[in-house]
Amino acid sequence: MKNVAVVGASGYTGVELLRLLSGHPQAEVVAVTSRQYEGESISRVFPSLGGYFDLKCEAINVESIAARADVVFTALPHKSAMDVIPDFLNAGCKIIDLSADYRLRDQQVYEQWYQAHTSPDLLTEAVYGLPELYRSAIKSARLVANPGCYPTSVALGLAPLLEGQLIACDSIVIDSKSGTTGAGRSLKEGSLYCEVNEGFKAYSIANHRHTPEIEQTLSQIAGQSIQVSFTPHLLPVDRGILSTIYASQTKGYSTAEILNIFQKRYADEPFIRILPEGQLPNIAYVRGTNLCDIGLVADQRTGRIVIVSVIDNLCKGAGGQAVQNLNLICGFDESAGLSAAPLFP
Amino acid sequence: MKNVAVVGASGYTGVELLRLLSGHPQAEVVAVTSRQYEGESISRVFPSLGGYFDLKCEAINVESIAARADVVFTALPHKSAMDVIPDFLNAGCKIIDLSADYRLRDQQVYEQWYQAHTSPDLLTEAVYGLPELYRSAIKSARLVANPGCYPTSVALGLAPLLEGQLIACDSIVIDSKSGTTGAGRSLKEGSLYCEVNEGFKAYSIANHRHTPEIEQTLSQIAGQSIQVSFTPHLLPVDRGILSTIYASQTKGYSTAEILNIFQKRYADEPFIRILPEGQLPNIAYVRGTNLCDIGLVADQRTGRIVIVSVIDNLCKGAGGQAVQNLNLICGFDESAGLSAAPLFP
Amino acid sequence: MKNVAVVGASGYTGVELLRLLSGHPQAEVVAVTSRQYEGESISRVFPSLGGYFDLKCEAINVESIAARADVVFTALPHKSAMDVIPDFLNAGCKIIDLSADYRLRDQQVYEQWYQAHTSPDLLTEAVYGLPELYRSAIKSARLVANPGCYPTSVALGLAPLLEGQLIACDSIVIDSKSGTTGAGRSLKEGSLYCEVNEGFKAYSIANHRHTPEIEQTLSQIAGQSIQVSFTPHLLPVDRGILSTIYASQTKGYSTAEILNIFQKRYADEPFIRILPEGQLPNIAYVRGTNLCDIGLVADQRTGRIVIVSVIDNLCKGAGGQAVQNLNLICGFDESAGLSAAPLFP
Amino acid sequence: MKNVAVVGASGYTGVELLRLLSGHPQAEVVAVTSRQYEGESISRVFPSLGGYFDLKCEAINVESIAARADVVFTALPHKSAMDVIPDFLNAGCKIIDLSADYRLRDQQVYEQWYQAHTSPDLLTEAVYGLPELYRSAIKSARLVANPGCYPTSVALGLAPLLEGQLIACDSIVIDSKSGTTGAGRSLKEGSLYCEVNEGFKAYSIANHRHTPEIEQTLSQIAGQSIQVSFTPHLLPVDRGILSTIYASQTKGYSTAEILNIFQKRYADEPFIRILPEGQLPNIAYVRGTNLCDIGLVADQRTGRIVIVSVIDNLCKGAGGQAVQNLNLICGFDESAGLSAAPLFP
Repeated sequence: MKNVAVVGASGYTGVELLRLLSGHPQAEVVAVTSRQYEGESISRVFPSLGGYFDLKCEAINVESIAARADVVFTALPHKSAMDVIPDFLNAGCKIIDLSADYRLRDQQVYEQWYQAHTSPDLLTEAVYGLPELYRSAIKSARLVANPGCYPTSVALGLAPLLEGQLIACDSIVIDSKSGTTGAGRSLKEGSLYCEVNEGFKAYSIANHRHTPEIEQTLSQIAGQSIQVSFTPHLLPVDRGILSTIYASQTKGYSTAEILNIFQKRYADEPFIRILPEGQLPNIAYVRGTNLCDIGLVADQRTGRIVIVSVIDNLCKGAGGQAVQNLNLICGFDESAGLSAAPLFP
Repeated sequence: MKNVAVVGASGYTGVELLRLLSGHPQAEVVAVTSRQYEGESISRVFPSLGGYFDLKCEAINVESIAARADVVFTALPHKSAMDVIPDFLNAGCKIIDLSADYRLRDQQVYEQWYQAHTSPDLLTEAVYGLPELYRSAIKSARLVANPGCYPTSVALGLAPLLEGQLIACDSIVIDSKSGTTGAGRSLKEGSLYCEVNEGFKAYSIANHRHTPEIEQTLSQIAGQSIQVSFTPHLLPVDRGILSTIYASQTKGYSTAEILNIFQKRYADEPFIRILPEGQLPNIAYVRGTNLCDIGLVADQRTGRIVIVSVIDNLCKGAGGQAVQNLNLICGFDESAGLSAAPLFP
Repeated sequence: MKNVAVVGASGYTGVELLRLLSGHPQAEVVAVTSRQYEGESISRVFPSLGGYFDLKCEAINVESIAARADVVFTALPHKSAMDVIPDFLNAGCKIIDLSADYRLRDQQVYEQWYQAHTSPDLLTEAVYGLPELYRSAIKSARLVANPGCYPTSVALGLAPLLEGQLIACDSIVIDSKSGTTGAGRSLKEGSLYCEVNEGFKAYSIANHRHTPEIEQTLSQIAGQSIQVSFTPHLLPVDRGILSTIYASQTKGYSTAEILNIFQKRYADEPFIRILPEGQLPNIAYVRGTNLCDIGLVADQRTGRIVIVSVIDNLCKGAGGQAVQNLNLICGFDESAGLSAAPLFP
Repeated sequence: MKNVAVVGASGYTGVELLRLLSGHPQAEVVAVTSRQYEGESISRVFPSLGGYFDLKCEAINVESIAARADVVFTALPHKSAMDVIPDFLNAGCKIIDLSADYRLRDQQVYEQWYQAHTSPDLLTEAVYGLPELYRSAIKSARLVANPGCYPTSVALGLAPLLEGQLIACDSIVIDSKSGTTGAGRSLKEGSLYCEVNEGFKAYSIANHRHTPEIEQTLSQIAGQSIQVSFTPHLLPVDRGILSTIYASQTKGYSTAEILNIFQKRYADEPFIRILPEGQLPNIAYVRGTNLCDIGLVADQRTGRIVIVSVIDNLCKGAGGQAVQNLNLICGFDESAGLSAAPLFP
């Protein structure tokens, strides 16, 4: 049994972490923080949690929280995260950080896309928390940088192809669509119901901050520098990311042959489902779970492979993957607290 | 550990039962039936279940299923249910029937709203499976008639008032709104996405088949015959029922006083949450769970009490309550398999 | 041809007015105001209007606007509206006010539900802009108080029954459901997409500010004081109000007889459609129009009539009715600019 | 004034045509056909049209319809369309065909993607009804093949680039997302509300029938054979198509320079809005209209241009473009009946 804290609990990532942790057999939530709701019951902030938690939101007091918690999930905006993480580490906590602050290994790249980094020394220590790629390093990490939602869907969809050198590295086009929880719970006109509902749009074309994170992971897998075209879109649904990925094949394999490569690569992965030929994934089929569903077609006509990779952005794309990382660093069963079936419909 | 079968697994109630049973610690699903999908994997019918079940849909063969299953959930349309239930009982199975066939105790009433009943003798044996009202009878039942979704939300919202004789029995108006899973998975023009989305309508005014079921339960609680106005509406959401119930008060109590009566009545109930004064329920806060959230206001101006009762129609209104009944008839913890927190957002 | 101004153009009522006025054959929009977007093009605020208007948002300058506009639509919050309306009147403009400031004739009632009134003398002059009830008074009005969305749906649904003394005045229960545009475009957590989508809730039970407005109109029609139970709900759709209204019948008429009374009452009304027996309205079928669809059932079992009245809350419930009032005070064809068919799906 | 008929009126394309024609100043609908609803009022089939049309659905009788109608819209499935179109032409009607039957000029290509063609001689006569590309030919056409929804969005988004030889023809990747009206009104499990809502999926990867239509138009513009990767997706909204199009630039132009080329190309087009740099389109901003909104970014990092092209699939993608073609072949103002502003929200 480990005691955990959720720092920054009043956003959608926070409530997802709490939902999952409420059913975790070996983790107990001992503290939740929220500047906005300090002093208020977390069950008042999220009535869905009524009866599941009897905790009041606290201000962030590192000493106090570190005295109670073994592992701290930081679900803060970037910048705010690195303001407190070094102190939590010094106080002896392990950290699973859901912000972007420790995902990029190259300080310069971080500073180009975000702002000055205040603890750059930790960038090399932090382990990128994508278990399917970095499982063993995560197990012994003190600071896990939980991946972004888009990068998770993309890396899992491309890893077998890059590992097998099956695609041309300069040909990758990534067209991603995310549910609106991805935009967070802060008050913006663009997040209002009537602005999102019955609408659909692309945003941040060619300059979304997940681009360098995607490229870092793909480059590392490929062993060479990769640049991608990445276009995110906003879907009028609560949850789910679907990434449609295009790349030119180098070997002329059939759909069946490539599916076979995926199946072998992910055979032991508890959260990845490779769909049989002719089936394609739907965000609705992974709702509320840590699953990643992948389907693909090798188009002989154009020579491109089209991969469709689907996750729940709040779960495998945030809180679920964070719990998976908790399980790894604590030596729990990797699926602990994460085995419930998808909610469909 | 009990072996269970789901007869009629390819509808929304079927997939909900399977979702819940996949995480049940003491129940194992040994058979699923579907006429439409006979021979096909249930995970192909519902890709969400991929990796959770390795079962093929069977035709209904009572002998074969009874040889494997201790308890059978029948998730068939009315009429089809009573065609097979007597045989399952004779074969020694316990039955939790999610159809309407054994909910009404009075054969004549059943035949007036449905059709001729082919096993009327079982009507008196069947126990109405609303645990908050009939828990002890359920525990020893051989045949549980799992309540309708609307009637569940209404009975739980009115029971404390009727038990306490706090409202005028001829004053009850029930305005209910249900998510679209309530319309089932069969192909009807009115269930198409573009007919439901961005729409809202009332239907079956003054003649919905849940009316006699509601009146039966309310009359039984009150000890006198009760007639209600009941209007169902179709909500453009997947899941959830919200019933807004109006009744004239007989005693002039305040909101706080009535809430207190509800809190006492349901103090030991694991699935009922009475909201504090000033808070009102939302279907989003019970999504995917067996919870019933109740809020209310005693309007001194008009003398009416307005109760708002909220459930997930597929869960507490169908599959979840069925699992709760399974737990009762098998002597399991009543919350087994039903303790996961709501999925919000 | 009349010149009109839209004061408070950056909300959902504003954009709806502009949408309708863009197609009006005899009205030209000469000014739009918005404090928040002063100096910005209205087509930048609402990209949907690109190419339809070439106007910049102004601050409210009564003198300047009055010099250009014959009629001013005020789409401001209550309180803000009465801060400027007397000045516009003094400057010679006619006013169609979409706020609540001049809807209640009784200053005391207004002040009980809102705040102190700063131009109470205008309360008696203002004409309540529900053409189906007050057409001739509107035609000569200088100040039209455009009705609230809920009150419009309710008054049209009950008028024939109250006029004919067909229902018991103390028996009225109104259960209304509104699309989310009704909550406005201001930034509130409860208006975020992920808080509304897949959710449904009641709010302001027994204390919604439209209650006195509803009661004023119903009382006036009935010639006696009427109190109602009124419960609004928030629907996860953009547009539409559906009010389900219950009242005890005094005469035992059949559904057909009551429908006949409605058909006669509204025979000459261009915007009211009485549905034949057996059909019920859906908000989807009036989308984007000034129509009000009404269906009903006389339930012989309970003695109650159940009326379902449906409008588009932004159109007949706000901007469309305002244009209808414009047509009346300007002597235009009452349907000018309002004849487009509903957008379905 | 022209008399028109809508053959195949009971689908979503049919109701959209009727909606638009109800407000057309120079067209009168004299006949509607529907096999499924023969004898029933079209206002009963689509209650939204109540009061707008007083027509009963007929069976298709070419002679009878040709005696009344000058122009016939055929909104039938492919195959069914070519079963009747030659007869209508022989009977002297002009035809605007919304099916796929006459869109492809090459019989062999048609037969490879569809089935045997029964009037291949008409393939060369038919004019592809995309006014922005083929306006003058349309004006004198007897048979207009109204373009598919996806192809419309793609052709308008790529035409200026191909005309200017600004992109590499083998680099085109098209990722399109369509609202659910695009799936039609026929009864399919995949079109049920609960299967679509809160879901998102790709479908028909590398084998969607709009692919040859897209390639035909692009090849014609470019003057060379073009093959594209085209992936359609199903959006949980009623209306709207957004195509995100990727292509490698040949000239290194900036976003501003390319936008300038688009603005010039479409300067006189009444239905195309080129968004300024920094703005991107949203399907919500063209809802219910014949508009096509285009935004783009030239990504210097990858050398690709990303174009986002947005239409209402039922309007510019079907019924609206059909009315635009009606206007052209009848010599009406090209915007007649099509000038209403978008319905937002």
